[in-house]
Amino acid sequence: MAPEVGATLGPNRYGKAGIRLATVVRRDGQHEFFEREVEVRLEGEFEDVHTKGDNASVLPTDTMRGSVYALAKQRPDEGIEAFALRYTDYLLDASPAATRAETWITERPWDRVQIEGRPHPHSFTRGAHRWTAHALRERGGVRLSAGLDELYVLKTTGSAFAGFLEDRYTTLPATDDRIMATNLEAEWRYGSTDLDFGVERRCVKDVIVHAFAHHDESNSVQHTLWEMGRAVVDSCPSVDEIWFSLPNLHHIAVDLAPYGLRNEGEVFVVTDTPSGRIEGTVRRTEGAFPA
Amino acid sequence: MAPEVGATLGPNRYGKAGIRLATVVRRDGQHEFFEREVEVRLEGEFEDVHTKGDNASVLPTDTMRGSVYALAKQRPDEGIEAFALRYTDYLLDASPAATRAETWITERPWDRVQIEGRPHPHSFTRGAHRWTAHALRERGGVRLSAGLDELYVLKTTGSAFAGFLEDRYTTLPATDDRIMATNLEAEWRYGSTDLDFGVERRCVKDVIVHAFAHHDESNSVQHTLWEMGRAVVDSCPSVDEIWFSLPNLHHIAVDLAPYGLRNEGEVFVVTDTPSGRIEGTVRRTEGAFPA
Amino acid sequence: MAPEVGATLGPNRYGKAGIRLATVVRRDGQHEFFEREVEVRLEGEFEDVHTKGDNASVLPTDTMRGSVYALAKQRPDEGIEAFALRYTDYLLDASPAATRAETWITERPWDRVQIEGRPHPHSFTRGAHRWTAHALRERGGVRLSAGLDELYVLKTTGSAFAGFLEDRYTTLPATDDRIMATNLEAEWRYGSTDLDFGVERRCVKDVIVHAFAHHDESNSVQHTLWEMGRAVVDSCPSVDEIWFSLPNLHHIAVDLAPYGLRNEGEVFVVTDTPSGRIEGTVRRTEGAFPA
Amino acid sequence: MAPEVGATLGPNRYGKAGIRLATVVRRDGQHEFFEREVEVRLEGEFEDVHTKGDNASVLPTDTMRGSVYALAKQRPDEGIEAFALRYTDYLLDASPAATRAETWITERPWDRVQIEGRPHPHSFTRGAHRWTAHALRERGGVRLSAGLDELYVLKTTGSAFAGFLEDRYTTLPATDDRIMATNLEAEWRYGSTDLDFGVERRCVKDVIVHAFAHHDESNSVQHTLWEMGRAVVDSCPSVDEIWFSLPNLHHIAVDLAPYGLRNEGEVFVVTDTPSGRIEGTVRRTEGAFPA
Repeated sequence: MAPEVGATLGPNRYGKAGIRLATVVRRDGQHEFFEREVEVRLEGEFEDVHTKGDNASVLPTDTMRGSVYALAKQRPDEGIEAFALRYTDYLLDASPAATRAETWITERPWDRVQIEGRPHPHSFTRGAHRWTAHALRERGGVRLSAGLDELYVLKTTGSAFAGFLEDRYTTLPATDDRIMATNLEAEWRYGSTDLDFGVERRCVKDVIVHAFAHHDESNSVQHTLWEMGRAVVDSCPSVDEIWFSLPNLHHIAVDLAPYGLRNEGEVFVVTDTPSGRIEGTVRRTEGAFPA
Repeated sequence: MAPEVGATLGPNRYGKAGIRLATVVRRDGQHEFFEREVEVRLEGEFEDVHTKGDNASVLPTDTMRGSVYALAKQRPDEGIEAFALRYTDYLLDASPAATRAETWITERPWDRVQIEGRPHPHSFTRGAHRWTAHALRERGGVRLSAGLDELYVLKTTGSAFAGFLEDRYTTLPATDDRIMATNLEAEWRYGSTDLDFGVERRCVKDVIVHAFAHHDESNSVQHTLWEMGRAVVDSCPSVDEIWFSLPNLHHIAVDLAPYGLRNEGEVFVVTDTPSGRIEGTVRRTEGAFPA
Repeated sequence: MAPEVGATLGPNRYGKAGIRLATVVRRDGQHEFFEREVEVRLEGEFEDVHTKGDNASVLPTDTMRGSVYALAKQRPDEGIEAFALRYTDYLLDASPAATRAETWITERPWDRVQIEGRPHPHSFTRGAHRWTAHALRERGGVRLSAGLDELYVLKTTGSAFAGFLEDRYTTLPATDDRIMATNLEAEWRYGSTDLDFGVERRCVKDVIVHAFAHHDESNSVQHTLWEMGRAVVDSCPSVDEIWFSLPNLHHIAVDLAPYGLRNEGEVFVVTDTPSGRIEGTVRRTEGAFPA
Repeated sequence: MAPEVGATLGPNRYGKAGIRLATVVRRDGQHEFFEREVEVRLEGEFEDVHTKGDNASVLPTDTMRGSVYALAKQRPDEGIEAFALRYTDYLLDASPAATRAETWITERPWDRVQIEGRPHPHSFTRGAHRWTAHALRERGGVRLSAGLDELYVLKTTGSAFAGFLEDRYTTLPATDDRIMATNLEAEWRYGSTDLDFGVERRCVKDVIVHAFAHHDESNSVQHTLWEMGRAVVDSCPSVDEIWFSLPNLHHIAVDLAPYGLRNEGEVFVVTDTPSGRIEGTVRRTEGAFPA
């Protein structure tokens, strides 16, 4: 029995991943379709669950799943940000032992089919990126973020990488013109929860894409990250802070000399691994007024 | 030694998969960007390669890779169909032992960024499906197909499944209104190789999506497959035959009764497995004139 | 209406993929555990299903799923080969319109936990490859194959690649010593269905691995494919024919010269793409007696 | 220009992911083979990189890649823990602006082929889990962890889940006998860096698997997490703390009643989503002597 006194439970949490659901709203012959995936974690006073095998305080992960469906039924066309707020509220109510409930929701947009310029009432094709929402609720309050991922953006020029630190393992040549491509992920924090989230997020996405495209003297992925972040803080008054994860999807010019050809920026190998990873946060300066 | 006489080489082939490349065309400040992946196989008289370890007739798969880059350099903005024809031509030239060269090419479309309605000269976001080309060349001729995959389409109504065969293992209830969704893959054969393939393929895709959307009394995935195939044969005179693979991406209505709620076609579980798989071919009737 | 006469239904089939199940057999305190995945297709007279939307002849894919569970209940510890025979038998019985039923089954082996050399009665860890079975049944008879996949094998020497065809796109240097690695997939056909399949398949796997390891003067992946196939035909009298798919998982020696170091066969880059693909069949020579 | 004053750079880091390499050690005809993947991040004073596009302080991620190969050449059979220490040491040396260097290394074990009980000198098959190492080095010191992932363990009995909290969304029935399965990931912290890491990690893995198998009255995944963690702290004096991530891979008994059959714990559906996620840490109690 002695060994038992030697161990202590440290940080722990539990929940459910991969709760996939779709909702349909039917209104006067025009349908809306939403496809989402929910992940959730609870943290709190769960020591007896672990050390004594006492489940009295455990809200089963199966209930977390069922409640997602039930809450979705109540408001099938609610945005993922509002759903995240409502879901974490339910979770802290349902689990007295929990001190924190966290949820991550992704939405795969489906675009309405257009036929000869006219929107079809109930047919959709799947879009090319995802929207995300993240709520972290404690007994005293909630922190809400929105975001997007799987947004692949690329520019064929306007990107350089030179003037970097060199050491004995340096082989990369400096370049004043390269392809820049990334699978962009971003998450931003709003200063308020009383917003039209659908409008806000489309605005943030547009600002990101425009800043990426227009930043024509990019010296690095970091440099473009800053430009995108600064543009969002500048143009979207509701956003206090934005974080980016920007894998550098390398496009390497093929050496065609062995074939007697000269590659003038025309043919590139696309690689998955290894890949650069650039992450960073841009914040609204305290005291600065939104533009 | 005796055992050696007991074995014979049967059908065999070899090649390279996953040859990824991108090409850029720069023209008066307007750039085009293409991302492709090539796979290739050769078949032929390769018995000594296997049984004697004699590589004299082997065109290395590394050369298959290198020649893709070199051929791409020669015509960086060539369509994948024409590239497939040219590449298989090179392969049969380069490999006297080969009797057949087959290539599959996929292209991930990248859409030009639009900023305030104006196309950006060199920035792109990645599209949501892929184009494909498939060429099978023998010494006597070539067969060319084009296609697409990863085209997710969905309709929230207009689809039923009823009147099916029942046996002792039947539990599925008949339904007169369900969600139909698929990750559509298609491959079609042209009657000619003298076509504007880019125009043709966009036409085929549009016809497929329209037929899917408009087929409002679908009794099964097979029924919609036929409608789409018939529409393509009818509307695209260059297409002789089209094959579809249509996984049935099930959206199952959640039973909300345990929560005291009634699901009126609003909340669905999205599942990956198991999934129905429907495949079929629709052909232009011999002797029938294209519409 | 005219367009309708212009199209004809060609080859078609339908079925279910991803039917995942586990079975447990409990016998005197010793448990057996099996994890499997089943895929199935039917072909036959299904023209009205497509062209008229008439489902009267359709055995739903949901029933294909349910019957897998029911048949598994009847014999939970049956081998996948016998299950494939029994399942396709049921399918042709259940579907009068079908002329052909085909099933592919994979089994992920779970190895019994050994504790201080003693087998644990009910704990398992997941193994590193899969077993497969494939049955194609028509009204007149059945063809059965067994196989394996996801068997990663590698040798650090004993493999060369030289003497190959060269042309203007050749850049690969010849080598007399390289790493050979593959993610081996094989499928073999038995001459009989009255066999102890579990014994047979373990025998085939052992012969494959031994032949791979012992083939110390390999001139190519094709050469080793032949050696493995010949060994199986030679050592496993029940096998009439074996097919291999052998992706060449390239391990490329890193050029360390820029760092002032010399790579003496010590450091390699592991790549996924592109990769060589070698496929081939070895058959027992007609008239040759099994060894 | 005004907008520029409104934004500030927050937390940021950069590095490389997916640096894949293999090393071979050749010693008296007996070869060793190691396959690894390295990921790395630097944090530090990189504000000018972002806001001014000044790369003077940037160690390129390409150099991070090259140095992995060079360091591997120097000691090709070094364990991943020691490599992580040496690599992060190099990184802080090479990058004066960095205040923190972090690396994650995974190793896919390849098992030596045994032929008739004898180890083969240079042939291997790939194992079924991975080893991991994680080093976080700052100017003042380093924190080293080791771990494993992709270890699939399963028990067919000895696991219950009952007595849990119920609310209006509860549908899960209590059970006193279920399958418990997980894709186990663990990471543990050593109290010293002067250890035989290979011996230590195999010891930890054995203790984990034994505790999982022997915990025959498990009331939950959390309960078994605690048992495994307690056993490691108790049996492995070098380990101060261990963290587990235990997805609950649900095996759901199939309802066979519609087929007139009764499922007596024999047939289960295996699902990927949704899945429970249980994470937790077990620490050596401060002041407690290792057993």
